[in-house]
Amino acid sequence: MSFASTLVQGKGVGSDVGVALLGHGTVGKQVLRFIGDNGDDLAHRIGGRIVVKGVAVGNPDKHKDDVPAELLTTDAEALIERDDVDIVVEVIGGIDYPRKLILKALNAGKSVVTANKALVAAHSQELAEAADKAGVDLYFEAAVAAAIPVVGPLRRSLAGDQVEQVMGIVNGTTNFILDAMDTTGADYDTMLKKAMELGYAEADPTADVEGHDAASKAAILASLAFHTRVSFDDVYCEGISKVTADDVEAAKQAGYTIKLLACCERITAPDGTEKVSARVHPTLVPRSHPLASVSKSFNAVFVEAEAAGRLMFYGNGAGGAPTASAVLGDLVGAARNKVHGGRAPGESTYANLPIADFGEISTRYHVDMEVHDRVGVLAEVSKVFSDKGVSLRTVRQEESDDSARLIVVTHTAREADLAATVEALKNLEAVTAVNSVLRLEGE
Amino acid sequence: MSFASTLVQGKGVGSDVGVALLGHGTVGKQVLRFIGDNGDDLAHRIGGRIVVKGVAVGNPDKHKDDVPAELLTTDAEALIERDDVDIVVEVIGGIDYPRKLILKALNAGKSVVTANKALVAAHSQELAEAADKAGVDLYFEAAVAAAIPVVGPLRRSLAGDQVEQVMGIVNGTTNFILDAMDTTGADYDTMLKKAMELGYAEADPTADVEGHDAASKAAILASLAFHTRVSFDDVYCEGISKVTADDVEAAKQAGYTIKLLACCERITAPDGTEKVSARVHPTLVPRSHPLASVSKSFNAVFVEAEAAGRLMFYGNGAGGAPTASAVLGDLVGAARNKVHGGRAPGESTYANLPIADFGEISTRYHVDMEVHDRVGVLAEVSKVFSDKGVSLRTVRQEESDDSARLIVVTHTAREADLAATVEALKNLEAVTAVNSVLRLEGE
Repeated sequence: MSFASTLVQGKGVGSDVGVALLGHGTVGKQVLRFIGDNGDDLAHRIGGRIVVKGVAVGNPDKHKDDVPAELLTTDAEALIERDDVDIVVEVIGGIDYPRKLILKALNAGKSVVTANKALVAAHSQELAEAADKAGVDLYFEAAVAAAIPVVGPLRRSLAGDQVEQVMGIVNGTTNFILDAMDTTGADYDTMLKKAMELGYAEADPTADVEGHDAASKAAILASLAFHTRVSFDDVYCEGISKVTADDVEAAKQAGYTIKLLACCERITAPDGTEKVSARVHPTLVPRSHPLASVSKSFNAVFVEAEAAGRLMFYGNGAGGAPTASAVLGDLVGAARNKVHGGRAPGESTYANLPIADFGEISTRYHVDMEVHDRVGVLAEVSKVFSDKGVSLRTVRQEESDDSARLIVVTHTAREADLAATVEALKNLEAVTAVNSVLRLEGE
Repeated sequence: MSFASTLVQGKGVGSDVGVALLGHGTVGKQVLRFIGDNGDDLAHRIGGRIVVKGVAVGNPDKHKDDVPAELLTTDAEALIERDDVDIVVEVIGGIDYPRKLILKALNAGKSVVTANKALVAAHSQELAEAADKAGVDLYFEAAVAAAIPVVGPLRRSLAGDQVEQVMGIVNGTTNFILDAMDTTGADYDTMLKKAMELGYAEADPTADVEGHDAASKAAILASLAFHTRVSFDDVYCEGISKVTADDVEAAKQAGYTIKLLACCERITAPDGTEKVSARVHPTLVPRSHPLASVSKSFNAVFVEAEAAGRLMFYGNGAGGAPTASAVLGDLVGAARNKVHGGRAPGESTYANLPIADFGEISTRYHVDMEVHDRVGVLAEVSKVFSDKGVSLRTVRQEESDDSARLIVVTHTAREADLAATVEALKNLEAVTAVNSVLRLEGE
């Protein structure tokens, strides 16, 4: 097998486009396989052949069965610098090393395709400036929800609309765990273990279960949606490791399912200032909402825009082949631009909206607490909410012996007011414990 | 209100892009309103101002309250020819007149954005050749499923993948009617009437209910997905006007819902030739399939690709604002190309696959018939199926007095074999009527 598409006779199919592949793991292997298998098709779509000039890896011995020896190299920098390399595809992962390599590529006038959400979320400004300066493309569709087209639709299809909200299930590991908890009633630890056994969770699952992976994607989605630079550090992030079987059951009884959502929205502060908020947290979603039926490790991104209304994009949000699909789509785009001229829309941060403090956002809350089972408790608890300006929508009480469980769903309230309410509840004699505070979206 | 975005100070925002708007109906009004309201944003995203140079309508008096008099004109051709018009937006509808105008625009070197599915499905070759010759853009995201990004994802995001199948609910009127039949048990005529009352169906609903509108979209989707020119005339088309309340009920009992699907697929003929099939017909979809839960007048397009796996795009498939969203996204794209250079990917028909005869496609079937209620009938009927090479998956019999109803679901069979089976069944003494033959997809 040759990792160059066959030379195709015919109009417009002539120029070669040299590609350096950095990394040959799960995604890199699929990218290489696809170029080998479907090179003719790609050549027709591009108007020129994709020719892989080299594959940079840490240990060539581990890859010599899959990649011709003459393509393997440990010297990624030298590969990037080669005159016959036009486009650099980065599928290594990590931050510091790929950052250095991508900057080197951009500074050398090579377009870059990357699947690296952590890098893009942390260093978008630096990367975008380097791409702009060199007049080359920086593509990263694969960084959010793998094969599901999200970056492209936000950058292009919705470029004439005003996006108001983006809510996404953008992490397959956590969705698998929460979906399994919802379906079986089992607890978090059991289902995390199962996710590990089935390969849905890594040996160290921290980045997934604590929401860091989703937070990187939230930063990217918010940046694109609101034409504002939003970095990983700007995203409020809360993972799923504290979600209990009780939470899931209580949500179920109230008609909700719990999902780890990346929520990005444009909000208007009391003084009229428009701000951007991006946050990741376990969220109650009504079972009738399209996001509620996203099961297993699937991903979905829900977008609400002024003219378009509500849109949803659904599919495989991880895995070698789905991620490779997005990388290859970007590669074809960058290669077309090399052959025919033109550039993809670059970073758009003109709106430059301030990032809202987490306390400024407004949503609804599901508060689960233990209270003493005596006359007047409900009145005391209700007063705490109303004193802080939080109004209640539903109250459910479950009794057992001399204690009672009180589950409250609020109307829309400010996060800061809710936080103050929870502090006050904890200090209230009638409340023995605040079991959980979960946010509620999608109504 | 000025229908030009305010001049924006800042880097790269300088050049004006002149736009001619042809048509000022439901969609045109929203396009104009959005340019007026959000011109500054568009200017930033484009790197230049959108300036509407004129709005061509049939009767200016009808529009003078919404459009400044100096912009209104009845002379669309003169407007297109103006030197300061760079991009022509066509939202008139119909075929012959907009075809003439769009060709005029392309031949004059102006990029074109159109929402006209019927025109694109009927004349894509002519339009694409004119755009290629002039080196300008021809965009038509709004032609399929309005605001739902489908054309863009197929043209760009999936450009490195191999699409195997596209199945879509791409007509809101018929989905509204079928969904209402499914929910209420009412018959077709009742729900068509309700759709008309609620504004979901037009006074003459033929194009919608007979599947012509969906067939235009199927032609466009198949062309994009398989890099092959597929025209409206290549699409097998069967509407929903013959779907009965009995069909819906029988489907429901078997765990399906009936949807009008546009099915586009790549099939391999017995001799190994790859072919393309595009068809529109009422289809049984398992209730667990993502398309089954697409209710009311919503649209959804389901794509299966080799690397990406299964994707679904969901949203508003019609209406003034959602259609305008897609038109505006295209307009921003065409304007960016005017300002910065470059062209959108043009028509890609290199694969040039033959169109399969309808008899060559394979699917599963749900056949509902009346039979005599006597010994041996099931054996006779089964023999007809097996003689024609169609194997049965399930058989359900319902008895009443001296007749019986037999509902058969087949395994995958060739359309030609199934058609021959149905002919033979009609000639069988034991069969008094073949009530319906419905295809089944999504398993």
